[in-house]
Amino acid sequence: MLFIKRFHSSIQRIAHIVRANKPGDELSVQGWIKNIRRLKNNIFLDINDGSTCNRFQLVVPRNAQTQKLTSGDVVSAMGQVQVAPNGHYELHAKEVKSVAAGHLQDGFPFSPKQTHPPEYVREYLHLRSRIDYIAAQMRLRHRAQKAFHDYMDEHGFVQINTPILTTNDCEGAGEVFRAQPDSDNLLKQMARPNVPQDQSYFDSKVFLTVSGQLHLEAMSYGLGNTYTLAPAFRAENSKSPLHLAEFYMFEAELVHMERLDSLSAFIERMLKEITKQLLSNSAADLEFCQRKAQGNEANLELTWLKVPWQTLTYDEALTIILANREHFKTAVNADEGFSKEQELFLVAHCGAPVFVVDWPAKQKPFYMKISRENPTQVHALDLLMPTVGELCGGSLRESDAQLLSQHSQIPKHLAWYVELRKYGGVPTGGFGIGFERYLQLLTGVKNIRDVIPFPRYPHSCKM
Amino acid sequence: MLFIKRFHSSIQRIAHIVRANKPGDELSVQGWIKNIRRLKNNIFLDINDGSTCNRFQLVVPRNAQTQKLTSGDVVSAMGQVQVAPNGHYELHAKEVKSVAAGHLQDGFPFSPKQTHPPEYVREYLHLRSRIDYIAAQMRLRHRAQKAFHDYMDEHGFVQINTPILTTNDCEGAGEVFRAQPDSDNLLKQMARPNVPQDQSYFDSKVFLTVSGQLHLEAMSYGLGNTYTLAPAFRAENSKSPLHLAEFYMFEAELVHMERLDSLSAFIERMLKEITKQLLSNSAADLEFCQRKAQGNEANLELTWLKVPWQTLTYDEALTIILANREHFKTAVNADEGFSKEQELFLVAHCGAPVFVVDWPAKQKPFYMKISRENPTQVHALDLLMPTVGELCGGSLRESDAQLLSQHSQIPKHLAWYVELRKYGGVPTGGFGIGFERYLQLLTGVKNIRDVIPFPRYPHSCKM
Repeated sequence: MLFIKRFHSSIQRIAHIVRANKPGDELSVQGWIKNIRRLKNNIFLDINDGSTCNRFQLVVPRNAQTQKLTSGDVVSAMGQVQVAPNGHYELHAKEVKSVAAGHLQDGFPFSPKQTHPPEYVREYLHLRSRIDYIAAQMRLRHRAQKAFHDYMDEHGFVQINTPILTTNDCEGAGEVFRAQPDSDNLLKQMARPNVPQDQSYFDSKVFLTVSGQLHLEAMSYGLGNTYTLAPAFRAENSKSPLHLAEFYMFEAELVHMERLDSLSAFIERMLKEITKQLLSNSAADLEFCQRKAQGNEANLELTWLKVPWQTLTYDEALTIILANREHFKTAVNADEGFSKEQELFLVAHCGAPVFVVDWPAKQKPFYMKISRENPTQVHALDLLMPTVGELCGGSLRESDAQLLSQHSQIPKHLAWYVELRKYGGVPTGGFGIGFERYLQLLTGVKNIRDVIPFPRYPHSCKM
Repeated sequence: MLFIKRFHSSIQRIAHIVRANKPGDELSVQGWIKNIRRLKNNIFLDINDGSTCNRFQLVVPRNAQTQKLTSGDVVSAMGQVQVAPNGHYELHAKEVKSVAAGHLQDGFPFSPKQTHPPEYVREYLHLRSRIDYIAAQMRLRHRAQKAFHDYMDEHGFVQINTPILTTNDCEGAGEVFRAQPDSDNLLKQMARPNVPQDQSYFDSKVFLTVSGQLHLEAMSYGLGNTYTLAPAFRAENSKSPLHLAEFYMFEAELVHMERLDSLSAFIERMLKEITKQLLSNSAADLEFCQRKAQGNEANLELTWLKVPWQTLTYDEALTIILANREHFKTAVNADEGFSKEQELFLVAHCGAPVFVVDWPAKQKPFYMKISRENPTQVHALDLLMPTVGELCGGSLRESDAQLLSQHSQIPKHLAWYVELRKYGGVPTGGFGIGFERYLQLLTGVKNIRDVIPFPRYPHSCKM
């Protein structure tokens, strides 16, 4: 049982050393050498083990064995925690064990002492986690996901794994990926009469999901509030720094939801609380990412956390945009919502994030609840934020089975969706947040490809 | 701000009432009527709101309005918590508000007073969450996912969203789904010289992932320990109650992992701790699911939690199987591992879950570490459990770039995978657990289709 003890107690991750240790403690560390300085009697190794954006100094005697160490090597050492002249902890070890060689002189694309632009780093996706900046992004992404899960769990939501493979394309936007077995033999084997052969596996054309909303709704009718944090797919030919072919959506569906302002209040409180938690448990990584993304400027005092968020009706927002039309490169088109530039203008104009509510029905999908007072409008909201513009879209759902089934835009094959309302229907409302856009909002990272581990976009699906 | 307060404080979910309230408290509840009894002066409504497998009794005066209520209706009521003669809490309300009608007499496939077999229930996926048993499964699934995330987070692992779309098929098993845009126009638009048109979106054939392992490994080389809990896909024509076309894999990769017994010790401790947590926070749902799956037999005293798990080498396991060959319907084939029947025999034989280790190299994939003492063997483990047989597979990974690149089975296009080892390689080991099989192990549910919200299998991709 010795190895269990060793694995769990004496090997410390660097992030934990400052929290859990005191000078004089004996412990082991392991990590990659990021930098080396050789003095007369000692060698100073800055190592990193992936647990933090900070490096940790190992001090070992200079001798024939330690002389051979180079950047990129993996080492482990056991020694005593001491306080360095700069006030940081360091480890004084009698010897250091080389676990593996770095070989960074021989074809490795990243130079240890150089900063590489993100476009270049992206060319080497498989090695990208060795760049401090990307590692920090990944830790932050982990913490953000954890914070979303924790928050929803504490508030009694049930996480539903909405399916990736689906026969519906939700809003009928049409930009979907289709999936089928790669093996023609299998497709032949499974052939059935009246089913095109490329559809024989599922007896139907099957797509990759664009949203889990409809599935969440089905589950909410038995379970109450539900949510999902799952991949979604769009086959768009877009190189925009805000779009990916495979991205993550956080979606929630709330039952007994009859007022749009209840929904927006929930969203505001949730995003503020989750963000505050990240500020408290990921400050170092967050600041590190902000400095890198924003040219060494960090701003952990996110002003949008401290102000009450505003609400504008679509008509009010349109009036503001029209009154300022000379500011925009993009034309104002009252039938198409707002451009990103216009969204950011509205946020600046209000001095706060803005919920734009009460949208023209013709601009929004079939499932949104039509205003009983003004049937040209739906109870929909878009949340506009600094940096990214639209972060979140939501609505009350049409809970009247008859109104829904008569909607001119309802896709075929959604009889089941209407039926949800027919039997024990309950008013619901929900929303979706682009998870990567939330990370961009936090850190100011310009390109969405740098906040996801393995970005997929037109002409690029590496690894 | 009134609605915020109302939303969060005074409306109680049924699961919370017993924990958080005392007799005399005034509160509101909302839910679906599951059963009605009418007495002389009062109506007793058993309601459920999806938060628990238990129902909650509402007592309201019998009058013209309450007389109309039927099963399936959605109601809300405000009243006072009291203790019923059976000792349970109930709510005495002066009136009950009807939120929506149930219409269960008119085409609804489930009769409120009848128990339906799971095969029948599965035909109505969109309404399935209204069956108490399925709702309990979904809550349990939620809690199990949460427990995995919490455990890994507490142990310093970073969750990595391994991609769904990938150009590699991991082990080259060949039973993959392929993805491409559904729009021929888009494919034409994006055409490039020397790229087949159906591949023009990514310039490559793209598959749905069968495992996140290789991607986890890439990330572990910068971040340390990583994990994922994500969908995986297999285009198999299998109707087995242990297989799905879309399922969830929990996979972890551990750095500085040089011993297989360290890896198995980690797995045993993790599964025991997560399961104990579920026993403490989901006992009611777990027992409910067990009784339903096992014909009213529940066993929260999972014996495999209490015993130390055993380890057999593959050769030892084979010897046991050969000595008992007359017990098996399936033939013993020394080149193909064990059948499910044989796996369950080994578990019974040992009286405990069994790690089978040190497998013949020719039975296992290219990435497993070859024994330096006996190159016909790899440092691999299969974990065999009661009920489900193989629950988990894992191995040390081949960390020697040269040995790896010379492996006869290494797929083409995996130069990047070899390169991971070349630059600052570090010994790693990891494992994968079929998440649905873990749920089957917990509850005894026979068909894997009943532990996932939206099962996908041959000839079936509903909704």
